[in-house]
Amino acid sequence: MSGKLDAAAVNELELIARLTRDLPRNPSVVVGAGDDCAVLDLGLPDRWLLFKTDALVEGIHFFSGTAPERIGHKALGRCLSDVAAMAGQPSSALVTIGLPRQFEPAFVEGIYAGFNRLAQKYQVALVGGETTASPERLFMSVAVLGTVAKGRAVLRSGAQPGDAVFVTGELGGSRAGKHLDFEPRLAEAGWLAAHFALHAMIDLSDGLASDLRHVLHASQVGAELLAEAIPISRAARTAATRSSASGPDGLTAVQPPVQQPASLGEAPTGTGGAPNAQVPAPGVYGRKNPLLAALTDGEDFELLFTVASRDAVPLLDAWKTEFPDLRLSCIGKITAEPGVRIRDRKGIQPLAVHGYVHFA
Amino acid sequence: MSGKLDAAAVNELELIARLTRDLPRNPSVVVGAGDDCAVLDLGLPDRWLLFKTDALVEGIHFFSGTAPERIGHKALGRCLSDVAAMAGQPSSALVTIGLPRQFEPAFVEGIYAGFNRLAQKYQVALVGGETTASPERLFMSVAVLGTVAKGRAVLRSGAQPGDAVFVTGELGGSRAGKHLDFEPRLAEAGWLAAHFALHAMIDLSDGLASDLRHVLHASQVGAELLAEAIPISRAARTAATRSSASGPDGLTAVQPPVQQPASLGEAPTGTGGAPNAQVPAPGVYGRKNPLLAALTDGEDFELLFTVASRDAVPLLDAWKTEFPDLRLSCIGKITAEPGVRIRDRKGIQPLAVHGYVHFA
Repeated sequence: MSGKLDAAAVNELELIARLTRDLPRNPSVVVGAGDDCAVLDLGLPDRWLLFKTDALVEGIHFFSGTAPERIGHKALGRCLSDVAAMAGQPSSALVTIGLPRQFEPAFVEGIYAGFNRLAQKYQVALVGGETTASPERLFMSVAVLGTVAKGRAVLRSGAQPGDAVFVTGELGGSRAGKHLDFEPRLAEAGWLAAHFALHAMIDLSDGLASDLRHVLHASQVGAELLAEAIPISRAARTAATRSSASGPDGLTAVQPPVQQPASLGEAPTGTGGAPNAQVPAPGVYGRKNPLLAALTDGEDFELLFTVASRDAVPLLDAWKTEFPDLRLSCIGKITAEPGVRIRDRKGIQPLAVHGYVHFA
Repeated sequence: MSGKLDAAAVNELELIARLTRDLPRNPSVVVGAGDDCAVLDLGLPDRWLLFKTDALVEGIHFFSGTAPERIGHKALGRCLSDVAAMAGQPSSALVTIGLPRQFEPAFVEGIYAGFNRLAQKYQVALVGGETTASPERLFMSVAVLGTVAKGRAVLRSGAQPGDAVFVTGELGGSRAGKHLDFEPRLAEAGWLAAHFALHAMIDLSDGLASDLRHVLHASQVGAELLAEAIPISRAARTAATRSSASGPDGLTAVQPPVQQPASLGEAPTGTGGAPNAQVPAPGVYGRKNPLLAALTDGEDFELLFTVASRDAVPLLDAWKTEFPDLRLSCIGKITAEPGVRIRDRKGIQPLAVHGYVHFA
């Protein structure tokens, strides 16, 4: 239809730029749109406020047969992951649920049960709820308020050339279940911020390659990754094995399990078997290759952060004592040269794969 | 389908009671679910925080042909109206927009334009946005953070027998346009709270009869209204005139223009010409009667508040000087006896008409 553009055709970055160019501000805003949470100074003597919302839509972020407890868990967990990425502590939450005309009360109670269990674990108060009609599909929107020590919010913009880049946990294949059951890394982020000078941090919701780019863009730097150091999850390896029949070269495009949120004009992915033109080296980073999955699958909800290189070894040592059950990987370094390069046995090459575009 | 209940069949109050019985809390919660906003004490020396979310769904809260600027205005305005109802000041907002796969960028920009214009008027910072896919219909969810002087939030629970009951503006017929263009009563609420001891306050979103009941329920009191004192809008009178051909007795059920939000298991209204069984006096309060419209139409976004009877006349006098262009009406009084009664030329009778059920 004339005047209508498919989302894929929109220059989403341009639209986002237009929308965020002149956002209303006031003196309380420390960090507005563009980081994991907004940061506000409302006059607390020693704390800043963190403010975040996140939405889930049935068929986009979860399938319709998903257990309601897991939907509730995910809805809150995503916001808590964003609070973790600022090194903050969540305080309270509000929840909106859009429900079809026909629903089972037990289903709504299940959503609350999953939500509340996670809230209680992190002493988050649920201070209000709203339901509205959503005839075709369930949606949820969660708002979370948190705090962080004044001046201690870890932003995306602080990465410096020479920094070591770390990620927690293992990446890729979240569709197999982790995207519904992940643990927001609040404890880990709090410990990290208390013991080390974190330069930049983000949670991995759009996929490592994409979220790293958010950090690099905000910090005006680049990065070099070590392919062998990227922690690939068992789920990503299993998915690669299972699908090898359909394309041993790894070229077959994979439909992401659940699409990412916050995709203003997001280009559809995985719509066919065509290789993604932005993947630089077919056969190396085909879409079912486990490494590519670790780089581009979304919804890992792990932390990516950078510290000065001199802190890298002490941090790894202390981490192993503090969190013996959670892997921490130094996956590369920040460079003054922009862009992302990846080094493997064959040499170094630019990494152009994309995750998703996020406006938050 | 077995195990599935139509929303109308659910005992919504029971479900809400179950959902809100054991909400996670923490020591920062001053007022949790159940008032216009949550009230939080996060340690600000002299302020409490107000926290609120509200959602709009296409086809439910606005029609698909609505100008995007008006949608954006309404989405923020509803939250600001809730902040006003606590006598608070809004500070910042986050916005989520669920968009169909095909959308016009100019449409999204229009939503932001309407949102931003209202935000700027009240010095509200827009500190983040998110878009997500919503294939069938657009939805918006807005979260607002505000503040109020410590101990000065005006709750629903403070109404006392003998109080005078006031409403601002004129009621009913909001579907004709006001529901999209209303002005949140922030200035009025701030002035009222600064000059008078407000006992209880609420914004009229579900309709006078329903919202008054929220106050009465929270305060454990009743009310007696004066039919002649209820300010009926021109839009409500016009709608009554236009539809008189279809039922001069006023009995014809009217489809509400836009359904109310937050209707957990809300009974559908206006589904036919049958008289509403809960309307006590057909011919007096038929559904197109302007008085009934003023009592039950939703989305007036005016304020209802109560003050000690001795304050009623001074308040009315001062109001006329301060807000000469906005009507203020004393519509009745709070009683120790529970329930709502309405007095007109024919005498006094119980008012059993319903608005909508709200879980917020």
